[in-house]
Amino acid sequence: MQVIVNGRTRQYRTVEFDTKRNRVLLIEQRLLPHTFKRIETQDFAATARAIRDMVVRGAGAIGATAAYGLAQGARAFKRRSMPAFQKHVQRVFEALRNARPTAVDPVNAMLEVRRKMAAGNTIEAQQEIALAAAQAFADDNVEDCRAIGKHGAALIRDGMNILTHCNAGWLAFVDIGSATAPIYTAQAQDRKFHVYCDETRPRCQGATLTAWELAQQRVPHHVIADNAAGHLFQRGQIQIVIVGSDRTLGRTGEVANKIGTYAKAVLAHRHRVPFYVAIPLSTIDWNLKSGAAIPIEERDETEVLGAWGADSRGARRYVRVANPGSHAKNPGFDVTPAELITGIITPKGIFKPAELWDNRHQLGFTGR
Amino acid sequence: MQVIVNGRTRQYRTVEFDTKRNRVLLIEQRLLPHTFKRIETQDFAATARAIRDMVVRGAGAIGATAAYGLAQGARAFKRRSMPAFQKHVQRVFEALRNARPTAVDPVNAMLEVRRKMAAGNTIEAQQEIALAAAQAFADDNVEDCRAIGKHGAALIRDGMNILTHCNAGWLAFVDIGSATAPIYTAQAQDRKFHVYCDETRPRCQGATLTAWELAQQRVPHHVIADNAAGHLFQRGQIQIVIVGSDRTLGRTGEVANKIGTYAKAVLAHRHRVPFYVAIPLSTIDWNLKSGAAIPIEERDETEVLGAWGADSRGARRYVRVANPGSHAKNPGFDVTPAELITGIITPKGIFKPAELWDNRHQLGFTGR
Repeated sequence: MQVIVNGRTRQYRTVEFDTKRNRVLLIEQRLLPHTFKRIETQDFAATARAIRDMVVRGAGAIGATAAYGLAQGARAFKRRSMPAFQKHVQRVFEALRNARPTAVDPVNAMLEVRRKMAAGNTIEAQQEIALAAAQAFADDNVEDCRAIGKHGAALIRDGMNILTHCNAGWLAFVDIGSATAPIYTAQAQDRKFHVYCDETRPRCQGATLTAWELAQQRVPHHVIADNAAGHLFQRGQIQIVIVGSDRTLGRTGEVANKIGTYAKAVLAHRHRVPFYVAIPLSTIDWNLKSGAAIPIEERDETEVLGAWGADSRGARRYVRVANPGSHAKNPGFDVTPAELITGIITPKGIFKPAELWDNRHQLGFTGR
Repeated sequence: MQVIVNGRTRQYRTVEFDTKRNRVLLIEQRLLPHTFKRIETQDFAATARAIRDMVVRGAGAIGATAAYGLAQGARAFKRRSMPAFQKHVQRVFEALRNARPTAVDPVNAMLEVRRKMAAGNTIEAQQEIALAAAQAFADDNVEDCRAIGKHGAALIRDGMNILTHCNAGWLAFVDIGSATAPIYTAQAQDRKFHVYCDETRPRCQGATLTAWELAQQRVPHHVIADNAAGHLFQRGQIQIVIVGSDRTLGRTGEVANKIGTYAKAVLAHRHRVPFYVAIPLSTIDWNLKSGAAIPIEERDETEVLGAWGADSRGARRYVRVANPGSHAKNPGFDVTPAELITGIITPKGIFKPAELWDNRHQLGFTGR
């Protein structure tokens, strides 16, 4: 997407690859929204560190980064022994997998690259395939987001106020994003609307990343405290809600997403405002039978007890907000039941939560 | 209430008066929760500045401060001319009123003091009455909170998790508080329970003031992001909600309170968790006929765009959290409809919202 750098707009993806210099190019997301900067990783180990240290985050983005990292590592192999090459690739795979051990996207992305590589008979052929497969993975991610945008944009009409929560934007994918895709597509279709970004405490990805994204695209928007949405619903100032999802249950239509999503769904339902969830197919979990079985990560209490931001000199700094003697509970996600969800926007179209299972083969289910 | 100073507990009120030295003693609330300190105001002008600069805040607390400030100013008059004295008292009254021009409590408190003063025939008599009347005002405020605590404590049972929002604690009154009164009373009755404090963005009075209060009383508690309550309701981890109110409509039972209260009421209703509002009678507005008519203050956007806290050296500091190019909407309050409120805890007992009007004479209504 477009980024405004020194008053000029330039186009970037979250993750790119420099084929000649065999380097992964990443937006340094930890500096956003205060500073826009890109970094290059010299080798697969540096790419793994970038994933681990959250230079790049978001399921789609770290999947593509791992795929590129695997190609980068494979291409750096200079000897001629195929067994040594395969051992090396395994080492690269493990380094990238262990960078975020609980994330499933890097593993799936790399398995796809390796499956394709197996068709190459020489080291050189496998190296070439690895690069092409990583590129294809990234391009597919972009195409999926583009398709989400096409389906979702039809929901956005002139004059609407859209509520978003957290960041399921292009920074979390290779480009375009999921929850933001309908917004960017509707904007490209010249529709006029306005977005409210929940700041999304405690990590404030709405105030930082989503607001930054929207500012780059010059989409009219305001940040609000998570507390403010209820009042805006009451006064008829929100016409549609679009959020992303970390895991959507294909059997029940329940949606796990950033903490606070559930409350917004309850409010939208009370005020008869449509509530949509935008997801790529990789987010659908076809196995779990109940949202109550989704493990909810309890995150570090310091996130709730304070805030990160820029001080008056622009230096990044943590301030302790809460009473020094007090502790915090910090569940990272919540689960929204299907009954509160108007529709799930996928690359294959918009489905009611209860329709996911009936359309499972179209939506990528490969089990029985 | 009790404050832990250097490991020892001491008893304070938010506002006290040193009769011998004619000074108002205030807790410097702007330094909380990081530093506990009391200040003395030398004269009524300094007391007015303390109200204006929010050394002291909260309806009950600034009412009592203004009452004491009026007595302080009256007592400082050293000449013998009654007309000059009355002119002086009027000047004191105006200085204290203008410190927070939209607040109604200082005005009501001072009018009560002046009404009683009128019974005195000499300057000395009026000075004496002023002090006694200010003391009586403060003591009545404490007695009202004590009565709220007595009625509300009956709702709290062993093992409960109580959710609070914002700060309607003793720091906002002369002592004990409104929403906190049932908590402190139940603790004094040896009941065992736990409190979740919504951090209450954007000003975080829950994370700072309420958490500080509970820590001083050694009430088990955790701070949570405002986003987390929905998940806790879902998992059955909240058994009762108690909040305060800035204005409660006597005719409809609607409750205006800090932004975010409404969303908590909607969630509590969905999960069949009782939702109570604790108020002194002065909070009841007998005139307004609809909550939609309550003006909702739009506060400064910097509150939402960043956060105040202590840096690693303990210095108070503001950090900008949100994207630098973005703006914020910041409604300060919202209105909760009567249908979502289980009961209103008053010094006169607990009433259903719809019962306020029927019991209006008991609840202080003096109109027709």
